[in-house]
Amino acid sequence: MRIVIVGGVAAGMSAASRAKRLNPEAEVVVFERGDWISYGACGLPYVLGGDVRDWDALVARTPERMRAQGIAVRLQHEVTDVDARAGTVTVLDRQAGRTSTEPFDRLLLATGVSPIRPDWSRTDLQGVHVLKDIPDGQAIEASLKGAKRVCIVGGGYIGIELAEACRARNLSVVMLEKAPDVAGRALDHEYRVRVREELEQRGVDVRTGVTVEGLTGKAGRVTGVQADAGLVRADVVIVAVGVKPQVELAKAAGVRIGKTGAIAVNNRQETSVPGLYAAGDNCESTHRVTRRRVHIPLGLTANRMGRVAGVNMAGGEARFPGIVGTGIFKVFGLGAARTGLTQAEANDLGLNAVSVDVTSTDHAGYYFDASPIHVRLTAERGTGRLLGAQLVGCRESIKRVDVVAALLHGRGKVQDLAAMDLAYAPPFSSVWDVLLVAADKLGRAVSQR
Amino acid sequence: MRIVIVGGVAAGMSAASRAKRLNPEAEVVVFERGDWISYGACGLPYVLGGDVRDWDALVARTPERMRAQGIAVRLQHEVTDVDARAGTVTVLDRQAGRTSTEPFDRLLLATGVSPIRPDWSRTDLQGVHVLKDIPDGQAIEASLKGAKRVCIVGGGYIGIELAEACRARNLSVVMLEKAPDVAGRALDHEYRVRVREELEQRGVDVRTGVTVEGLTGKAGRVTGVQADAGLVRADVVIVAVGVKPQVELAKAAGVRIGKTGAIAVNNRQETSVPGLYAAGDNCESTHRVTRRRVHIPLGLTANRMGRVAGVNMAGGEARFPGIVGTGIFKVFGLGAARTGLTQAEANDLGLNAVSVDVTSTDHAGYYFDASPIHVRLTAERGTGRLLGAQLVGCRESIKRVDVVAALLHGRGKVQDLAAMDLAYAPPFSSVWDVLLVAADKLGRAVSQR
Repeated sequence: MRIVIVGGVAAGMSAASRAKRLNPEAEVVVFERGDWISYGACGLPYVLGGDVRDWDALVARTPERMRAQGIAVRLQHEVTDVDARAGTVTVLDRQAGRTSTEPFDRLLLATGVSPIRPDWSRTDLQGVHVLKDIPDGQAIEASLKGAKRVCIVGGGYIGIELAEACRARNLSVVMLEKAPDVAGRALDHEYRVRVREELEQRGVDVRTGVTVEGLTGKAGRVTGVQADAGLVRADVVIVAVGVKPQVELAKAAGVRIGKTGAIAVNNRQETSVPGLYAAGDNCESTHRVTRRRVHIPLGLTANRMGRVAGVNMAGGEARFPGIVGTGIFKVFGLGAARTGLTQAEANDLGLNAVSVDVTSTDHAGYYFDASPIHVRLTAERGTGRLLGAQLVGCRESIKRVDVVAALLHGRGKVQDLAAMDLAYAPPFSSVWDVLLVAADKLGRAVSQR
Repeated sequence: MRIVIVGGVAAGMSAASRAKRLNPEAEVVVFERGDWISYGACGLPYVLGGDVRDWDALVARTPERMRAQGIAVRLQHEVTDVDARAGTVTVLDRQAGRTSTEPFDRLLLATGVSPIRPDWSRTDLQGVHVLKDIPDGQAIEASLKGAKRVCIVGGGYIGIELAEACRARNLSVVMLEKAPDVAGRALDHEYRVRVREELEQRGVDVRTGVTVEGLTGKAGRVTGVQADAGLVRADVVIVAVGVKPQVELAKAAGVRIGKTGAIAVNNRQETSVPGLYAAGDNCESTHRVTRRRVHIPLGLTANRMGRVAGVNMAGGEARFPGIVGTGIFKVFGLGAARTGLTQAEANDLGLNAVSVDVTSTDHAGYYFDASPIHVRLTAERGTGRLLGAQLVGCRESIKRVDVVAALLHGRGKVQDLAAMDLAYAPPFSSVWDVLLVAADKLGRAVSQR
């Protein structure tokens, strides 16, 4: 059995490891277009900001270690075509400039996403970047040396993390965002405002409702961003306006693409073409709260899909359990987390949802260094079924979003949350944890007309 | 309707507030033996250690505020007898030295616990203390001024919190514990060891397997603790060897006491005597994992029982949902948390339990300041039903115990935990949160013979 994997980052390497572990007889070959495998892409902004030592620190498993496990890793090898009937892929060895045909019994498409590059950003000007992989990060790092002004286009979580990194390097940072708020649809308006306030308090010049029209440059280097609201001078421009799934190869193989634009898979990570699997950021997943197919590319999801695909490709049996829409990001001294649906998302889906907001402290208010934590909890009116939560507060305190995520998995009700025996001691929580306070309040709200 | 409440701390004041809110017509009278009501007893050690500003900071609701809500609060009033048939209590006004008879329609016994005072500690020597309430704390504070050596008898969580407080005051601290380990049965041996190590690294002289035989004194002040292992010199001795439920009044009223020694109540907080309710540390509760009646006196449980009793006494309908055995405490730079059952507790109950241990980091290992977190996860062999978790790690990281608590409420399985969509970003978690790693490992272990 020959298992071929296209893409060597989160999903691809998880799949390779699982497949080889389960079926040591199988030949497992990973083709990676670039030079790096198995790195924590979510950590990229933090190398730039200095919270991670260096780029190598992001690498979980080196090619040598994978090879020692009996997994063949071919760097600088790009899979350019798939012939599903013949069971072959066409592979370009980028260093040698040579193309070959490689057979497979099972093929995994773990091609991830690519950053969206608007037309205005397609330029030869130096100092214009996206951040998707380690070489991107290294290029940004080189550009930032000697720079004074950075313009970040896009106020999503990657833009936010980059803004923090640039401020940590004492750079002047302007953030341009098309929408009226930062943080996209991850949070409802009231919580996006808190994120924006934190950015502004830490010296990020946040400008929303701004459309970028082009870039200005001089002597081959970028000098500014031309927006409808005026020119923003910048030595470095980072474009972080979103990602799109890399599905060209899947399309070439005749694999069905879902309505979201990502690859449609079943819960065994099988595509519409027998023998072809897909896993990671290029795939749809099932949202357990809405039971819809969604495309929410995130690290844990990619790793988990990879494991599932690896087991199934190797002849085992594993199922991807779906997601509940959990996400978290840091913004300087704050963190923001969400799970399930926001009120706005629930409204868009036509759900009869009701939310409550509670502000409390991360631990007992009387205990040293208590910090505010803001929670929005959302449930279905009448039934009380939990739909989601949003939390903004100091660092680790917002990890309690996981309690709501756990309940969403089991389609729990707000009354269930209100009854929970959560951990209490003054350095860790108020006697009524903020989640319990919110659940209590929401329990009353769901039963009102 | 006249609702009389005996005891004005957590359960008593929660009940009073809820009863009055639900039934404003009801007369609500609280008799409190001491001078303080509605204070956070769990915060007492932290006032001594300086993490809480002062004693007043612990008070959530003053008598004035309660009176403004229409609740009568009588301080220094001790209820000395109950005549359930007549519907009266005998009340001693401790300041006036006068006894009166007060009628009630509903009576709540919220008498809490009292610290166990071994015979050897019953002495007139100055400098010997227990810590139960604010006056105890104030007495300890006065004793500690000018003291150099403190001996803490008892290595449970109160003893541990006191040891930290005394070290924060730069005192020499010896901890004597009868059992072979500190932290009692809250944790399994391997996790108790980690707590002990932290105590010792912070300069607490921990001596286990030691039986105290008596105290030594001079000129009316304590000078040491005589133990089987030798004499421990001390200017201040704090006895923290456990608590027992205060059930004398309940017994006098003919209320049934459970096998645990605490008051038996149903899930409406009703005792065996009609019209008599009990709530708080003096009560049993139902453990949702074992379905047994247990006595685990903790702050959230007391507050929650109080609310339930208050609603029911006022003519409403509320049920106490039971507990899952969640607990948490701080020990210097570490925290320890548990929920459900330890492996030892599961063994004692005859369950076929299996545990796995995982050590990971609180957030991504490559991200600045990652700290170790140790997790033991326990489930039933074969079925995979989750039975419990223990966590030891740096401060807030161990609050993720609540995720397991949430699953225990719904009698979840380890496979459920392994499938959870938990929040991941490098500053908050590893991509596979330590709970997921443990669940994955335990999932394999439960299916092995």
